[in-house]
Amino acid sequence: MTAVIKKAEEARKAFFAMAKKNAKDRDSALSAIAGGLVKNRSVILKANALDVKAAEGRLSSALIARLKLESEKIDGMARYALTVASLEDPVGKTLEATELDRGLLLYKVSAPIGVIGCIFESRPDVVPQIASLCLKSGNSVIMKGGSEAVNTNRALYKVIRDASEGAGMPAGWIQLAESRKDVEEMLRLDGLIDLLIPRGGKNLVEYIKDNTKIPVMGHSEGICHAYVDRDADLKMAVKVCLDAKVQYPAVCNAIETLLVDEKIAKEFLPMMADAYAQSGVEMRVDAKAYRILSGFVVKKATEKDWRTEYNDLIISIKVVAGVKEAIEHVNAYGSHHTDTIITGNKKTARRFMQEVDSASVMHNCSTRFADGYRYGLGAEVGISTGKYHARGPVGLQGLTTYKYLLEGSGQVVKDYVGPRARKYIHRKIQDHW
Amino acid sequence: MTAVIKKAEEARKAFFAMAKKNAKDRDSALSAIAGGLVKNRSVILKANALDVKAAEGRLSSALIARLKLESEKIDGMARYALTVASLEDPVGKTLEATELDRGLLLYKVSAPIGVIGCIFESRPDVVPQIASLCLKSGNSVIMKGGSEAVNTNRALYKVIRDASEGAGMPAGWIQLAESRKDVEEMLRLDGLIDLLIPRGGKNLVEYIKDNTKIPVMGHSEGICHAYVDRDADLKMAVKVCLDAKVQYPAVCNAIETLLVDEKIAKEFLPMMADAYAQSGVEMRVDAKAYRILSGFVVKKATEKDWRTEYNDLIISIKVVAGVKEAIEHVNAYGSHHTDTIITGNKKTARRFMQEVDSASVMHNCSTRFADGYRYGLGAEVGISTGKYHARGPVGLQGLTTYKYLLEGSGQVVKDYVGPRARKYIHRKIQDHW
Repeated sequence: MTAVIKKAEEARKAFFAMAKKNAKDRDSALSAIAGGLVKNRSVILKANALDVKAAEGRLSSALIARLKLESEKIDGMARYALTVASLEDPVGKTLEATELDRGLLLYKVSAPIGVIGCIFESRPDVVPQIASLCLKSGNSVIMKGGSEAVNTNRALYKVIRDASEGAGMPAGWIQLAESRKDVEEMLRLDGLIDLLIPRGGKNLVEYIKDNTKIPVMGHSEGICHAYVDRDADLKMAVKVCLDAKVQYPAVCNAIETLLVDEKIAKEFLPMMADAYAQSGVEMRVDAKAYRILSGFVVKKATEKDWRTEYNDLIISIKVVAGVKEAIEHVNAYGSHHTDTIITGNKKTARRFMQEVDSASVMHNCSTRFADGYRYGLGAEVGISTGKYHARGPVGLQGLTTYKYLLEGSGQVVKDYVGPRARKYIHRKIQDHW
Repeated sequence: MTAVIKKAEEARKAFFAMAKKNAKDRDSALSAIAGGLVKNRSVILKANALDVKAAEGRLSSALIARLKLESEKIDGMARYALTVASLEDPVGKTLEATELDRGLLLYKVSAPIGVIGCIFESRPDVVPQIASLCLKSGNSVIMKGGSEAVNTNRALYKVIRDASEGAGMPAGWIQLAESRKDVEEMLRLDGLIDLLIPRGGKNLVEYIKDNTKIPVMGHSEGICHAYVDRDADLKMAVKVCLDAKVQYPAVCNAIETLLVDEKIAKEFLPMMADAYAQSGVEMRVDAKAYRILSGFVVKKATEKDWRTEYNDLIISIKVVAGVKEAIEHVNAYGSHHTDTIITGNKKTARRFMQEVDSASVMHNCSTRFADGYRYGLGAEVGISTGKYHARGPVGLQGLTTYKYLLEGSGQVVKDYVGPRARKYIHRKIQDHW
């Protein structure tokens, strides 16, 4: 038995033991984790200093900044654990209840998923985040962080494990995998790991999706669109399309393509191009936009631009015949992440929102709102472009499934079949299990 | 481009077009399908006669019985389509609504999944069933039935397609794949097919799970348990455990293993063995049960028995020290499908229901109740032992996902960050989109 299989089996055993714990137990453990992080601040910082030192000269300064922990970041981690503790218990909620017959009551109750595998790159903040979310939702977790953060991750893991097990959580609920070989093995453990959550670049996510039978939650690309319709308030459109591109261009919910209704293109495009030019945004435009924007510095777009996530101060711009073509473009070239329409026409907005097949579809606001915190989910596991189970920004609910609990008083199916069969009542009731 | 890719692309295009249709449109198409089935009765029966004739001498009489359609079966199919039409619209329901800020309203709304691939064995009844469920939930579908029913499936497909497209559904929403090679290709179309639903034996389901990156909904095994606790009403226990085994032993929700608390084993086992013997059930028992059942014809169980789905009049029986060992056995050997406890002790029942990690956990009733119709789901797509998305008996809800719709009035994220940031309200509201 390899080390990873052993870890996964321990995690699975701990998952079953976790079912005996209630929300209070788990919240106390989250408090203990917060305390442990603060108390072990110097140990964690010392481990992190080793990683930072090893990275110097090998990693870019941006990556080193992501890797580096400061005292305040540790306070932030502790605060995060306490915030998660303060959220509503996602487990054991009665989602539906049905009276099947007198004395035969069916409850659909939220339940943890099992063993979660989380594979992420550099940022060590992810360790306490994911650990808190998994613990809150009653799941076990196996984590594999970036190799450049190996000392930091190990220190964080040890603090979290000791604090939570000290507070009564089952031994082994949190596990740390370390090598690339460990990841390869994890991907094969479809009997032991219930869900994989990759957090990182497109290559990591695609690699994982391509090499496992375990369900994967995440998104590999964010090709988001704004469509400015003929009935748009053009000033509002400029404001929204500027925010959606420049407020934080490196993230998945920033727009990559701007679609403009030909009816207002002549008036709108110069206004927009002005704003983009002032913010240093490079514009790659189709032939129609090119003619309209003759006074501006723009490049010609190629077919490839409609499929590209720039994650940068670059935008592709296309003039379309109207909402129909806009919808078709978004469904054909988008990544089903987040798209917005700017229009004063409610009917056009509803059509766009109904027909665009994306996790988030918006009207008269910036795509940058697509985020677990902004959506009020309390905590975010990630953003999913998969349609199965969890879609869009995913909070604690995405880390739960449900089970059916049926309370009877000796009922057998035999009595409900045949010519003198008892009839089902099938009445929705308000009871909680 | 192969024929299957072309079919999948047509189905995908139809899926986008389907978003323009409302519940009324889809229900009218379901009525048209019901009418079409009745009107084309003789065509369908003639096609079926070809399949039955070809099967004679090649298939068992049980399989031929499953393959063979009679006039009443066609009426049943038509009735099924009308029943599905009468169910509540699963699409466009507002599941949650949140006021993020004044004039910035977030709606979580149920939405179809996309293109469903359904792969099933012999029974042609599945064609109109799955077609009705997919249409009702706004999905496109590609179906592949058993090769022994090729003529019947083709006739049913044609009737359903013509009737629904005649009633305004987008051309291509239903597709028929026919060969084993087609299936192999379908499994590779993870950009075009969103969900696979295999309906058939363990081998089919395992083959599909092992050979695709597309999410698969289904169950490959039903190793279900009954645990008779020390505080059980023993007469009730006999009645429930008899029903759970013999009422229909060939199905997935029948029990395969009976666990008996050692505290009542001496009294209970002879009562139970008497009932099983009278119903012709073969008993494979552990050493403790063997000693107690010395007066009965029983076999000794081996380790393999605890992992076996007999789907037959055979049961394995094990004496356990109490509820703790029962839970451990179920979680270790079961297939997380359906398990029941018989006890008069509410605390013991709650513990069993909370700690057993199965899709359905029951108290004082037969595992045979685990079924979409009995659970009041209206229609059943199948039973899922996966934990991701849909679990247990799956109705129309399992064929939907959700999307977030955000209605704004020009909001940009820039205003919600920094030292003078606007604050989010995050108030749950009762509005519907």
